[in-house]
Amino acid sequence: MAVATQSLEELCINSIRFLAIDAVEKAKSGHPGLPMGAAPMSFVLWDRFMRFNPKNPAWLNRDRFLLSAGHGSMLQYALLYLTGYEDLTMDDIKQFRQWESKTPGHPENFMNPGVEITTGPLGQGIANGVGIAMAEAHLAATFNKPGFPIIDHYTYVIMGDGCNMEGVASEACSLAGHLGLGKLIALYDDNHISIEGSTDLAFTEDVGKRYEAYGWHVLVVEDGNTNIDAIHQAIETAKSVTDKPTMIKVHTTIGYGSPNKANSYEAHGAALGAAEVQATRESLGWNYEPFEIPEDALKHWRKAIERGAKYEGDWNEMYARYKEQYPQEAATLERMHEAELPQGWESVLPKYTPEDKAEATRVQSGKALNALSAVFPELIGGSADLASSNNTLIKGAGDYQKGQYQNRNLRFGVREHGMGAICNGLALDGSGLIPYCATFLVFTDYMRAAIRLSALSEAGVIYVMTHDSIQLGEDGPTHQPIEHVNSLRMIPDLLVMRPADGNETSGAYKAAIEAAKGKKFGHKVRPTVIALSRLAQPNLPNTSIEGVEKGAYILSDSDGTPDIILMGTGSETQLCVKAAEQLRGEGKKVRVVSMVCWELFQDQDEAYRESVLPKAVKKRVSVEAGVTFGWCRYVGDEGVAIGIDTFGASAPGPVCMEKFGFTVDNVVAKAKSILG
Amino acid sequence: MAVATQSLEELCINSIRFLAIDAVEKAKSGHPGLPMGAAPMSFVLWDRFMRFNPKNPAWLNRDRFLLSAGHGSMLQYALLYLTGYEDLTMDDIKQFRQWESKTPGHPENFMNPGVEITTGPLGQGIANGVGIAMAEAHLAATFNKPGFPIIDHYTYVIMGDGCNMEGVASEACSLAGHLGLGKLIALYDDNHISIEGSTDLAFTEDVGKRYEAYGWHVLVVEDGNTNIDAIHQAIETAKSVTDKPTMIKVHTTIGYGSPNKANSYEAHGAALGAAEVQATRESLGWNYEPFEIPEDALKHWRKAIERGAKYEGDWNEMYARYKEQYPQEAATLERMHEAELPQGWESVLPKYTPEDKAEATRVQSGKALNALSAVFPELIGGSADLASSNNTLIKGAGDYQKGQYQNRNLRFGVREHGMGAICNGLALDGSGLIPYCATFLVFTDYMRAAIRLSALSEAGVIYVMTHDSIQLGEDGPTHQPIEHVNSLRMIPDLLVMRPADGNETSGAYKAAIEAAKGKKFGHKVRPTVIALSRLAQPNLPNTSIEGVEKGAYILSDSDGTPDIILMGTGSETQLCVKAAEQLRGEGKKVRVVSMVCWELFQDQDEAYRESVLPKAVKKRVSVEAGVTFGWCRYVGDEGVAIGIDTFGASAPGPVCMEKFGFTVDNVVAKAKSILG
Repeated sequence: MAVATQSLEELCINSIRFLAIDAVEKAKSGHPGLPMGAAPMSFVLWDRFMRFNPKNPAWLNRDRFLLSAGHGSMLQYALLYLTGYEDLTMDDIKQFRQWESKTPGHPENFMNPGVEITTGPLGQGIANGVGIAMAEAHLAATFNKPGFPIIDHYTYVIMGDGCNMEGVASEACSLAGHLGLGKLIALYDDNHISIEGSTDLAFTEDVGKRYEAYGWHVLVVEDGNTNIDAIHQAIETAKSVTDKPTMIKVHTTIGYGSPNKANSYEAHGAALGAAEVQATRESLGWNYEPFEIPEDALKHWRKAIERGAKYEGDWNEMYARYKEQYPQEAATLERMHEAELPQGWESVLPKYTPEDKAEATRVQSGKALNALSAVFPELIGGSADLASSNNTLIKGAGDYQKGQYQNRNLRFGVREHGMGAICNGLALDGSGLIPYCATFLVFTDYMRAAIRLSALSEAGVIYVMTHDSIQLGEDGPTHQPIEHVNSLRMIPDLLVMRPADGNETSGAYKAAIEAAKGKKFGHKVRPTVIALSRLAQPNLPNTSIEGVEKGAYILSDSDGTPDIILMGTGSETQLCVKAAEQLRGEGKKVRVVSMVCWELFQDQDEAYRESVLPKAVKKRVSVEAGVTFGWCRYVGDEGVAIGIDTFGASAPGPVCMEKFGFTVDNVVAKAKSILG
Repeated sequence: MAVATQSLEELCINSIRFLAIDAVEKAKSGHPGLPMGAAPMSFVLWDRFMRFNPKNPAWLNRDRFLLSAGHGSMLQYALLYLTGYEDLTMDDIKQFRQWESKTPGHPENFMNPGVEITTGPLGQGIANGVGIAMAEAHLAATFNKPGFPIIDHYTYVIMGDGCNMEGVASEACSLAGHLGLGKLIALYDDNHISIEGSTDLAFTEDVGKRYEAYGWHVLVVEDGNTNIDAIHQAIETAKSVTDKPTMIKVHTTIGYGSPNKANSYEAHGAALGAAEVQATRESLGWNYEPFEIPEDALKHWRKAIERGAKYEGDWNEMYARYKEQYPQEAATLERMHEAELPQGWESVLPKYTPEDKAEATRVQSGKALNALSAVFPELIGGSADLASSNNTLIKGAGDYQKGQYQNRNLRFGVREHGMGAICNGLALDGSGLIPYCATFLVFTDYMRAAIRLSALSEAGVIYVMTHDSIQLGEDGPTHQPIEHVNSLRMIPDLLVMRPADGNETSGAYKAAIEAAKGKKFGHKVRPTVIALSRLAQPNLPNTSIEGVEKGAYILSDSDGTPDIILMGTGSETQLCVKAAEQLRGEGKKVRVVSMVCWELFQDQDEAYRESVLPKAVKKRVSVEAGVTFGWCRYVGDEGVAIGIDTFGASAPGPVCMEKFGFTVDNVVAKAKSILG
């Protein structure tokens, strides 16, 4: 389609295309096809519908844009550049996919303020979008007042065939339909091509019908390549349907404009190559140099700056009046947005003594959650259909349902992976919500990709994971975690906490809240997994919230240098405590250390760590009902790790613990074997 | 419904119910609700439709029954007992959920020959069922001849609301619809209740419409509690539709018969309690003692024995004639079924020398796969839409599609978790197929639950995982594995192999095939993960298939006791080889060890392991582009692990490797730092 003159829209749309083509070409790496095909819908969306301020990516009431098909990252970077975001320059675009550039291969929210979420792994972005739309509905129901629509924005997601095949997306979208999230609009880049070729190879379901079955409103744009008006009309219609999320199936051609590679997987994930780049320039009548944007197009795109200033300015004016009339609500909203902690909040955390009755740490978790949710309205969450087992219901907070979005108990259904990804959305909404989600620890396996993304994208999610070992008993090996705690400890930037009793559970929540607010680790927000027991545990002497803050601390000691150090976590710490009593009774000097959180411990200075685990004391025993893999770090060459390296068994919990060696006698025996 | 006399059907159905009720009550643990509600459909299925021989659970052409709602395990145990399976006695039932019983909390295939697959984690069973139905179609297309329907059976799955919420099930069922698997019949125990209460809380989609969108045939039985004829009719109709899988939505009442707990979550996951057990006996007119089955019912149920003997007898007679006419096909079928290896099979594995060109191990994996698939018709598999990146296409083997089930290239689409669970089904079908599946190593996170179940249920699946480190480069941190290899090593009973070059890749496949056939580890079948590089690696001197069999082996050595040992895996082994040359040039005695598979190494005797890594040699350096967590096991207190403990970055692969310290210089420097 070589045309002498292009319309302004075509210039604007081709600006997106060629920024993507040229950046990928320069990097000799990347995905040009999606940006080329999705450029028209993106133009219509960003130029005509989205309300945002390029000069203030953090403006609270902005519309959110999520690129679920994250490999199309150059699409997003092009849009950020063209509309005038400060932090994305043409030099950044030229450094696409290079060391330390702001334009990494897949969009990373921590590299670029204009990027809301980190995507790449398919299906995550649309599920994040469900979470962000849930946040909007919740905050609107909570904070808006008559005449003051403080929270009133849309969540737009561009997703592709891959996202639509992924189970995590199915889970989240089923929930979105149930909740009637009317301000969630997904544009499905329906190009019929995936990496292995035509979608006819593996994906022939009726996607529209499936989404209607979920309770979504479904529209189709037959020609998403050239019919701008149809795209415009569809988005208008989508916005007008307020009680259902909308999917707009936009038929596009992957790699549109490339004469030889369009409509084939060859346009998907590799640079077009110099010859094809040239051919595409000719085909689309684009006579500009690489990275050169026609003045008219840039000027038109950059009207977003003025529009954005007005959107935000008007909102600021409204917010100022709101703040006058509703100072308390405004104060809460601002405190949340600034990630500040309410005054004296730690005082609500339950404290325990050994005289308090033995309780499962999952029960104590429920108490901590309930206490905290009274002072943190930003706490919102739930379970994947195990609320009573996970103890995650907040009494009196109501169920979050269609038309009841002010409530805080989320009912995720049996959808662990969707739940995790939704929570990433809730956390990264930008309003300061702290989401928590729960299931049995063993089912972190279902949602590991979402947990990892929490860590990578600095999403302050609290993962409440109960039934954390073979001690759960009769449900048997499919349900008994073995490798899970240590395998989660390996995920960078994730806190993993395994409290022994009530004080430590309260301490775990204190750390988790602070981590979610970015109050630790050099102000980097971190997610936390809290592993909790099914069965009752005694409250131990000397446990404390303060101890937990340091990750590992001394519970009891003998005078002078210890002969041996016993280290425990969670339900096994009590075995160390009792074994120490026995050994001291036989004249040994024993130190007991609670190793509740390795990451916090490693974050302490060398002097503290040495004071807890002196290098010179080589005789050590660790006790944790999980794999021994990795404990060598703390037990060393001369120590012994008591653990379980096989699958578990179906039998009552106490029987399992005894059969697998988690007894005081066994700890004493192992200790003596190295004491000599 | 207290009736003086019950019909024979009612007696049979209530036999199921009360075995479940009484076993759960005795164990004071378990899930009575589903067995009580699903008893009628199970009676109709097992008594009137399923073709199986209780005295030979391994009969090749049996119908397969899968309980995807695995928590309802007492349903399955009751059916196995009532129909006369040898290995499940009344004593076994009385030991439900007790240490070392054959009736664990969730069905375990390795505990009980009548159980086809291990379930419990929701959504897995129905996905396994898709795999088993795929196996049936493949084997029928491959082995049947005119007049000889050797393979001709149905796959029946009972699934619940939870399974229908899970993404893994969505993925597998979308593929099942695409493939038109007409002999897959799912009975959906549609009881409107999950653990948190009514499904109205979170799950209000139109399930039937969704399955129609997938291309399934959907039927409804309005009264699944009492209308036996309707259930019967539905199964008949389902069987008659041969070009689509069928879902029968059977409306039931969870805990049917319990006056106070029926139709509530209270019947779901806890013993009814003595009072309610008694009330249920009265309500259903059941005047038998716990574990007492009325004679008439048992006699009727046990007709399955005679029927089964006839089914198998007739089949044996047909098979004998088939074998005469088609000896070659029969020989292959038998070899596969016996898990035997074809004569001289190892000779097809490619061998390499350092003069051969450098290639990515993913390329060498493709060569090994193609070579092996020529002698192993049982090898069948594919990728989650990354076939050309994973190098998993078998040339000339054709795409497995509707009507083309004889082909062996499976096109899973972007459905990693479904793919893994489907492969578990293919592996556990009982016919001896060896499935392989592939994606990027980082996306094992999406399918970890299925990988774990492969290990637990002894399913010989080969997981081909490419792009195994930061060396993959520009796709960046969302795609770069960091913790993945070590986190997989922690899963019990899973082989994890990271070959350095072509010989080691061939060795990895040799080990994987043998593990899948149960030729190692005391004849226990094991799954294998093979981690492969994206970029080219040189073929190293002294690598060998034989070395890989031992898990770790010496690549090069100096005379006498080493001063230091350098250990590497995969793409980093070459760094050890080159660093050793440098250090030897400076007079050091250096041993280089390839640590390709920790599990195989640990399986060697102490003497061998000591010969490779002598305890006395404490100066050690490990090099692997993954977390250091866990390497302390081999580097010890005095060694150094070179690894990466942070997320990666988007930049070209060689840049990433250099920036993160994977260079010969760094290995030499670390070695010198401990050599002193």
